[in-house]
Amino acid sequence: MKANRIFNFNPGPAALPLAVLEEIQENFLDFNGSGMSIIELSHRSKHFDDVINDAVARTKRLLNLDDNFQVLFLQGGASLQFAMVPMNLLADDRSADYVDTGTWSSKAIAEAKILGKSINVVASSADKNYSYIPRNIRFNEDAAYVHLTSNNTIKGTGWAQFPDTHAVPIVCDMSSDIMSRPIDARKFGLFYAGAQKNIGPAGVCLVVIRRDMLGLAPQSVPTMLRYDTHAAKNSLYNTPPSFAIYTLDLVLKWLEETVGGLEKMAALNRQKADLLYDFMDEGDFYRATAERNSRSLMNVTFRLPDEELEQQFVSQALDNGLGGLKGHRSVGGCRASLYNAVPVAAVKSLVDFMKTFERANG
Amino acid sequence: MKANRIFNFNPGPAALPLAVLEEIQENFLDFNGSGMSIIELSHRSKHFDDVINDAVARTKRLLNLDDNFQVLFLQGGASLQFAMVPMNLLADDRSADYVDTGTWSSKAIAEAKILGKSINVVASSADKNYSYIPRNIRFNEDAAYVHLTSNNTIKGTGWAQFPDTHAVPIVCDMSSDIMSRPIDARKFGLFYAGAQKNIGPAGVCLVVIRRDMLGLAPQSVPTMLRYDTHAAKNSLYNTPPSFAIYTLDLVLKWLEETVGGLEKMAALNRQKADLLYDFMDEGDFYRATAERNSRSLMNVTFRLPDEELEQQFVSQALDNGLGGLKGHRSVGGCRASLYNAVPVAAVKSLVDFMKTFERANG
Repeated sequence: MKANRIFNFNPGPAALPLAVLEEIQENFLDFNGSGMSIIELSHRSKHFDDVINDAVARTKRLLNLDDNFQVLFLQGGASLQFAMVPMNLLADDRSADYVDTGTWSSKAIAEAKILGKSINVVASSADKNYSYIPRNIRFNEDAAYVHLTSNNTIKGTGWAQFPDTHAVPIVCDMSSDIMSRPIDARKFGLFYAGAQKNIGPAGVCLVVIRRDMLGLAPQSVPTMLRYDTHAAKNSLYNTPPSFAIYTLDLVLKWLEETVGGLEKMAALNRQKADLLYDFMDEGDFYRATAERNSRSLMNVTFRLPDEELEQQFVSQALDNGLGGLKGHRSVGGCRASLYNAVPVAAVKSLVDFMKTFERANG
Repeated sequence: MKANRIFNFNPGPAALPLAVLEEIQENFLDFNGSGMSIIELSHRSKHFDDVINDAVARTKRLLNLDDNFQVLFLQGGASLQFAMVPMNLLADDRSADYVDTGTWSSKAIAEAKILGKSINVVASSADKNYSYIPRNIRFNEDAAYVHLTSNNTIKGTGWAQFPDTHAVPIVCDMSSDIMSRPIDARKFGLFYAGAQKNIGPAGVCLVVIRRDMLGLAPQSVPTMLRYDTHAAKNSLYNTPPSFAIYTLDLVLKWLEETVGGLEKMAALNRQKADLLYDFMDEGDFYRATAERNSRSLMNVTFRLPDEELEQQFVSQALDNGLGGLKGHRSVGGCRASLYNAVPVAAVKSLVDFMKTFERANG
């Protein structure tokens, strides 16, 4: 069957590799000779064990994780992690540092406060509408962890490098740039990512935790909200979101075997972002909203001369097969999300359209 | 493409209607003219709003719910509900009644205790290995709620009728018999069901809550674990498990439009269970484990004369295209799960195989 597909710049759920979608489609009624769909298959079967073990192994290879780290696939998205992190990792006699770089950081901070935990917001870019990443931050040496948001989907900023926190482990929300580039895992105590941007569909959250942090949760934390519960059962304590894990595994396979790993993925992502930022920097019709040295490579946020033009831009782009370009409802404007599965050809097509639109309206 | 499908008696994830699977497959690369897969589509789009609103409307029609009830689609499965229920509904100065009818009830009781809540286990069938449903229970009139498990997947028992709790609302785990029959919603303050047995794939949990119970949660409950958070946003507070909700919606459409509603579904489910129980009751080679008036219509648990025969039975059944017949690992034996999507023909085929197996081994 021939499908009429568009270029998809959605901020999440987002574009996935066409080859992955086609493989899911082809095998949907009979997974691997089981005589059942992947969504009818027992999570206690050998078939599904192979899937989840493959997803764990690929995650470890792609991120270059040693056996000090445990890979988990949980439900509830990054939003539930905002609560699980302090519930599990922040004892009542300790404090944690948080850096506020936008909406999602602010939500993580709010959850720690709801739980009555002691935290310090050691830096914030709220003073300039979150258009930059703070530098030269003084972290507390006795913090239990430092919480960061690696990429800010709504404000279009990202950490080019992670800061030096000395011996304090970083806990990081990597939802919108996980596996877009290599990372040095040794800096992290835990990182988490809702899959629906770079590595899969909605409904599963990747959590990578350093094993020595598994034992920190007090006994009062409910079973399902404890990292050690899920670690002890390879994420199969209860029925997992099996379709989402299966799809994530196929995306990781594509990252390893088709793209060739995270170095190559990072180069492609740099190429895509440069195409778009460089074009915008040449003129003044399109204006990137993030400060230059804080720009996200994943979410390119930009404005046009006025809101009416922005609406026309988003609408005409869709007519031209370019979808998902509206900015987040909380900030307005436009946004092109250039996640892993968005091809270079999509960005070239977008830039061509932007030139045409500017000629007609500039 | 022709798929080689088997009859699937899995306890969950479980069989789904073939027509639903085929519809998902056919539209997987281009959902409803969007040019994107359902798993690439924004949860803030009109396309997805239509999906979730349809799923809510069908749930309300099928279960005959009036506007006093709110329908939610959450993550974390029934296992997370074991904690969310007491966190949200059980104030520190109140107590709740729990009935213990097996593994899942026991887990719900354990979570309330981990949270330090005051509960009373007012009845249990642990004395006879959970082979029956307790009767003539004395509930506490001042209980905040009565917690029940409507169907016990592992032990093969179910509540034929729900008990009279007077004015105390029932909170019920209906994971393994939701929408297998009509219910009188007026008895319930809240009911919940992991979708992966009767109404969809793993990764989404249906929660139906009476609106007056939404406001009970103390301020210390994290945002994602509050029912009022999700109720205020029609289950779109954060990115929902969109594929699972979409599939659930298609299953509900099949229930309404192909089966013809829950009265008809209940008649079919009764027919299937009778076929199997009646056949077993005729002889003594196969022995149903549940007491006769407590038998589940969804999970038929049974034993053969010895464990070696049971292993041969499960293995030879699979060779004959009948899958998922192994009992839960905690109890052994055999189990045929006869959820909504298991056709009458599957049960007839199973009974035929059982006769053949008995002739060869009896």
